Amino acid sequence: MAQTPATPALGPAKALVCRECGASAALGPHYACEECFGPLEISYDFGDVTRAGIEAGPANIWRYRGLLPVPPNVIDTPNTEPGWTRLVRADHLAESLGIRTLWVKDDSGNPTHSFKDRVVGVALAAARELGFKVLACPSTGNLANAVAAAAARAGIRSAVFVPSNLEEQKIITTAVYGGTFVTVDGNYDDVNRLASEIAGEQDDWAFVNVNVRPYYAEGSKTLGYEIAEQLGWRLPDQIVIPVASGSQLTKIDKAFQEFIKLGLVEDKPYRVFGAQALGCSPIAAAFKAGHDVVRPVKPDTIAKSLAIGNPADGPYVLDVARRTGGAVEDVTDAEVVEGIQLLARTEGIFGETAGGVTVATLRKLVQTGLLDPDAETVIINSGDGLKTLNAVAPVARPSADIAPTLEAFRASGLA
Amino acid sequence: MAQTPATPALGPAKALVCRECGASAALGPHYACEECFGPLEISYDFGDVTRAGIEAGPANIWRYRGLLPVPPNVIDTPNTEPGWTRLVRADHLAESLGIRTLWVKDDSGNPTHSFKDRVVGVALAAARELGFKVLACPSTGNLANAVAAAAARAGIRSAVFVPSNLEEQKIITTAVYGGTFVTVDGNYDDVNRLASEIAGEQDDWAFVNVNVRPYYAEGSKTLGYEIAEQLGWRLPDQIVIPVASGSQLTKIDKAFQEFIKLGLVEDKPYRVFGAQALGCSPIAAAFKAGHDVVRPVKPDTIAKSLAIGNPADGPYVLDVARRTGGAVEDVTDAEVVEGIQLLARTEGIFGETAGGVTVATLRKLVQTGLLDPDAETVIINSGDGLKTLNAVAPVARPSADIAPTLEAFRASGLA
Repeated sequence: MAQTPATPALGPAKALVCRECGASAALGPHYACEECFGPLEISYDFGDVTRAGIEAGPANIWRYRGLLPVPPNVIDTPNTEPGWTRLVRADHLAESLGIRTLWVKDDSGNPTHSFKDRVVGVALAAARELGFKVLACPSTGNLANAVAAAAARAGIRSAVFVPSNLEEQKIITTAVYGGTFVTVDGNYDDVNRLASEIAGEQDDWAFVNVNVRPYYAEGSKTLGYEIAEQLGWRLPDQIVIPVASGSQLTKIDKAFQEFIKLGLVEDKPYRVFGAQALGCSPIAAAFKAGHDVVRPVKPDTIAKSLAIGNPADGPYVLDVARRTGGAVEDVTDAEVVEGIQLLARTEGIFGETAGGVTVATLRKLVQTGLLDPDAETVIINSGDGLKTLNAVAPVARPSADIAPTLEAFRASGLA
Repeated sequence: MAQTPATPALGPAKALVCRECGASAALGPHYACEECFGPLEISYDFGDVTRAGIEAGPANIWRYRGLLPVPPNVIDTPNTEPGWTRLVRADHLAESLGIRTLWVKDDSGNPTHSFKDRVVGVALAAARELGFKVLACPSTGNLANAVAAAAARAGIRSAVFVPSNLEEQKIITTAVYGGTFVTVDGNYDDVNRLASEIAGEQDDWAFVNVNVRPYYAEGSKTLGYEIAEQLGWRLPDQIVIPVASGSQLTKIDKAFQEFIKLGLVEDKPYRVFGAQALGCSPIAAAFKAGHDVVRPVKPDTIAKSLAIGNPADGPYVLDVARRTGGAVEDVTDAEVVEGIQLLARTEGIFGETAGGVTVATLRKLVQTGLLDPDAETVIINSGDGLKTLNAVAPVARPSADIAPTLEAFRASGLA
């Protein structure tokens, strides 16, 4: 394993705890429980955390460093400084859907334009403290961009593995940062399996979403913290979150719970909704069937950043949705495209397919009565439409093509 | 003309003044001097502007609304909230170029990922107050995105005109926001001319870069304000700025001068450098030849967002560069590609071709001794590499393509 200090300096993080059996382990480069092979999660001793202390921090995720498994001096080490993205009041979208108060948390404003910059930021900071030398991942796009950029900025090596058939534009947007970048002749499952095998051999490689996953996953908490702080230190009534592995949804819930326990926001009920594409909706299927377990599926959807057929956090997503009175819903690819267009046309935000899934799910939840249109609602746009242009290419067309004359313009009927 | 109020409420803006003959005109929908046809510029009466007042404002360009020609209540009207982008300390890039202290102002973090969101934000706010009903522009890309998005967010109509041969990806990223979007069978000069003709007919259309240009151009001042504030309320010693029309460069200089006059920063010398691509470098050519006038050229460069062959602010750029002891330099397209890669690999920032021009120019200025490597320097990355993927496609390639096995990985030599 990596040369890990006996007592890693990871701020408020105190131990690793198994989410299944509750067994405890010392902080270190571990991700599976030695007792039951369940997933490990960080446990904390937060001490005194105040609104004023957070507000005095930088305009990025490190304002919450006292709530994350990172060294206290994380700010002094070169990193991409993700987070503190816009929370946009979306009155036009709300009006078109018949909702009273709606906000869009627009995470396309991150350095490589997706929420992955948050989780990679935390993974990088923890991995360095744990003694790893290389930042690695298997990916199909957003994560590859985020890892390659973060490693370049930090001045360390990256090693990114993607399927060979990845779109050309995602190849370019990863390769440009330098580092080791390997295309693998197989599908994402093949790449993921290979990454786990390599992690077992390369002692000092931190695969962010494999062997340092407990640290990595905590980065999504910052989405929840920011939403609460940007609302003026309070929780929304309802939130709709795109679901791939399900980690983002469970961590936003965790963030809300932590803020309540720390007294940073008032304790109040809130409902958490998950959004999936019908071509990969194993959690929505389980929710609707009343199951506790999630049956894996083979993905077939344009929402590739959500296309995880065997979601690691599936059961935990079901728990959160049921505990809070929310739901997990799914929408067709055609509805996803409509969702992207609706968000762009009403609010000027061009989201990626995952954003389209979330907007379309919001609409469906209103139509089916599962979401209260009179309660304050937040939705997440987790990535950027510039990375998934193919999804809207057939429908995003010019109004007219004319000759370069005033006569041609007049004749177009567009005056 | 548009239904303009007799006394438009445009904050500190008091009048329009001709940059050539100094003649004054009342605030209104005017852009050319009635006396000499010279370009009009805003003049102000700023009153009392303090650091504390600015710091209490929002984390976007409207923290400087007291210095812009916009209504005081601009914050309450839906807009894309551009600005307050990262100022990144670039130690790795500095080291690779032999510079002591270097910062990158990364404007790819704006809502549609270029600095155009700033100028469009100011143009939109002023245009509404001046009584215009439609937000319009001729464009070759970034401006089209920014205008279509800003109009969608504001809930008003947009009308965007681009050359028919524009890259497919720039078509999609504009059309997705809805609005009127016209492709014109001609080059950018044809489109620009047609836009001016339409502006003469359509009373209530604000072409941001034509008939409301005096207001629009002021938006670039916010880049200068932010750099000074983010440095801790002080000016850098040197700044390198990409040059298309030249407006951005002259407005950053104007911003520095205003901050000095208002006592917000200490008065000190600073040197302003302009960066152009050799395939369209009429201002660099004039600078090197010692000319005061700029001879138009026919652009031929991959840096299309800088490809203005007849730059409106050319003479003013020469003035600023010469007055401050700076220079205007140009680089080849091959150097532009190297510049994009260097910025990505050292700092994890994937800039567009204009960013590559700026980095490559910085390198050349150090090599030729025109820029002092020991003086604190800021460079501008004005846009996003995701919009100009073709520029680096030939060189941004994977390290290896392997079978999905540990044996294949070991054999690759990348372990």
